[in-house]
Amino acid sequence: MSIKFEVLHTCKQSGARLGRLTTPHGVFETPFFMPVGTQATVKTLTPEEIKEVSEGLILGNTYHLWLQPGADIVKAHGGIRGFMKWDGALLTDSGGFQVFSLSKTRKITEEGVHFKHHKNGSDLFMSPEDSIRVQEDLGADIIMSFDECPPPYETYDYMKDSVDRTLRWAKRGKVALTTDQALFGIVQGGLNKELRKYSAEELMKMDFPGYSIGGLSVGETKEEMYDMTKFLNPILPFDKPRYLMGVGSPDDLVENVINGIDMFDCVLPTRIARHGTALTTQGKVVIKNATYEKDYETLDPGLQTHVSKYTRSYIRHLFKGNEILGMRLVTYQNLAYLKHLMTEIRKAIKEDRLLDFKEEMKKNTNYFKTK
Amino acid sequence: MSIKFEVLHTCKQSGARLGRLTTPHGVFETPFFMPVGTQATVKTLTPEEIKEVSEGLILGNTYHLWLQPGADIVKAHGGIRGFMKWDGALLTDSGGFQVFSLSKTRKITEEGVHFKHHKNGSDLFMSPEDSIRVQEDLGADIIMSFDECPPPYETYDYMKDSVDRTLRWAKRGKVALTTDQALFGIVQGGLNKELRKYSAEELMKMDFPGYSIGGLSVGETKEEMYDMTKFLNPILPFDKPRYLMGVGSPDDLVENVINGIDMFDCVLPTRIARHGTALTTQGKVVIKNATYEKDYETLDPGLQTHVSKYTRSYIRHLFKGNEILGMRLVTYQNLAYLKHLMTEIRKAIKEDRLLDFKEEMKKNTNYFKTK
Repeated sequence: MSIKFEVLHTCKQSGARLGRLTTPHGVFETPFFMPVGTQATVKTLTPEEIKEVSEGLILGNTYHLWLQPGADIVKAHGGIRGFMKWDGALLTDSGGFQVFSLSKTRKITEEGVHFKHHKNGSDLFMSPEDSIRVQEDLGADIIMSFDECPPPYETYDYMKDSVDRTLRWAKRGKVALTTDQALFGIVQGGLNKELRKYSAEELMKMDFPGYSIGGLSVGETKEEMYDMTKFLNPILPFDKPRYLMGVGSPDDLVENVINGIDMFDCVLPTRIARHGTALTTQGKVVIKNATYEKDYETLDPGLQTHVSKYTRSYIRHLFKGNEILGMRLVTYQNLAYLKHLMTEIRKAIKEDRLLDFKEEMKKNTNYFKTK
Repeated sequence: MSIKFEVLHTCKQSGARLGRLTTPHGVFETPFFMPVGTQATVKTLTPEEIKEVSEGLILGNTYHLWLQPGADIVKAHGGIRGFMKWDGALLTDSGGFQVFSLSKTRKITEEGVHFKHHKNGSDLFMSPEDSIRVQEDLGADIIMSFDECPPPYETYDYMKDSVDRTLRWAKRGKVALTTDQALFGIVQGGLNKELRKYSAEELMKMDFPGYSIGGLSVGETKEEMYDMTKFLNPILPFDKPRYLMGVGSPDDLVENVINGIDMFDCVLPTRIARHGTALTTQGKVVIKNATYEKDYETLDPGLQTHVSKYTRSYIRHLFKGNEILGMRLVTYQNLAYLKHLMTEIRKAIKEDRLLDFKEEMKKNTNYFKTK
């Protein structure tokens, strides 16, 4: 097995888990958050900077790299790590989510998915075996089973068929794998608990080294999301890492850690950064607001980074002038804040006070405010 | 006097000057190139990176900072240096060039220029005294006289009036100055040698600590530009720095150094970087070209920087995917190359072989090819 996972401690107050994930490219305390490097770059940052603001583990997107520059070119560089000069650990998704979310027309068959290129409209096809082969070329430490992430409005019958097909695809991916990369199974089933339980239990029979939860954070309410991770917590095996895909707002991180999640990724912190929303120890800061025009305080007085020296007034000016440096600084800040938050969360688990930590955060920030 | 300038050596082969410029924020060997930080940021880079790829001296644009965020806000930060956290030396232009080039409608009076905001169309006015006052707020080591840069197609009569007015404005600026910032006079006169000579000689009577050459690189041929700097070389005082405004392509740098220029600035290297054109020791590289798709060589094997580790294939991929990191890496490369080039030029002057250096560069790169 190319990865190893141990639960080191369970928070007596919240039940949240503190763990240790050992990979070929680093040992990481869980729970952690992974920045997303869709196109073999975490947008705006160099690998050196990513190292500073991550735990040392990032995510790459199979779909994007398969289409551009192509898996062969990435492979010729020794995989994503050689391509982007990242010496940390790496996880890739299966491409499934993008096949279903980016392409407007697609046809699902037992064999795989026929779909159109999201930009140039050309005909494409991906099977579970294709996904594994591409992910082998990309060379991540942890890879994902090819899955369908069905729209939340689909009927029970559609969902049941989809879950069954995704289970068959998971099995085929496992057979196709020729490397010692750690292949995770992905629990699907929408908001239907019966299907989610079925999906998890069938995957567990296949004995994956880790389990992802897909199909959440796709339009449901936060309460529905938390309810589902809470439901799955006692079902998923205690001694395997659980990865909640596509979730990364500060409140969602805290709530889902309480529900037993070990790993997270999300484009949100880097995406909102590029539009000028900063995540800070004091809460969200929408830097373009006029209130910051003459605010000579630093962006986040509670967090010392290389961004700390700039005033809010200067960063606002950069955004008003559409300057790339503004996006860089806030991207750096947002990831630095999430790294800080996850460190604080792990500390609170160790000290059996994660519920207290959540209450303090609710009091001191605007992250838990209803939208 | 807040700056000091000495000519240390004259190249026996070319007549080019090697000098030393002492400013309140650093001592610099001339000739040098200054990256442009229009909006108090050299586009895409942090101050730490600018330090690495410059001589330690950059340019800020008075017009842009006056309009956004406003001179008062920059002043409240202790000037541009405090605003952008730049601890090196700094030069500002007068705003004149932008008033004349960015605004579509303007009315020139003896008092100053009435014009429209280049984005929101509001009514604005700038006088020579306003320009000095704003530049005092911005706090650069070296500042510029407010000048008109007339379109090259204007008549002799227009040009003569314009040169005379700009001379009167230069005198008014000198009177208005209340700080010990080094105020340069700007030689104008278009492509008319008689007017250029008149402009230079009248400015010299006012005894400025340095002289800028404006109104070149605005549409004339390279030969016309070189001819004019060659013409002005024996006219301008030997013991004062000469600054050729808005010039920065590798061939123009070499040719104008030979014609006695000490200081340069230009947006070109950073602007073309953001569109994917790299300046390297081997010549221009248009990185989006298909030929680089599987080119696993680094961008510039002749120049070791933090960009050296990435392949051309990777950098091309970043541009194909519209990734900001691509713009960052090539911006860094282009400024690093110009810093390297100016270092090589100064070395060649010291060794009395700048003409040989130019011939080698002509042979080994595509920089001197006619367009």
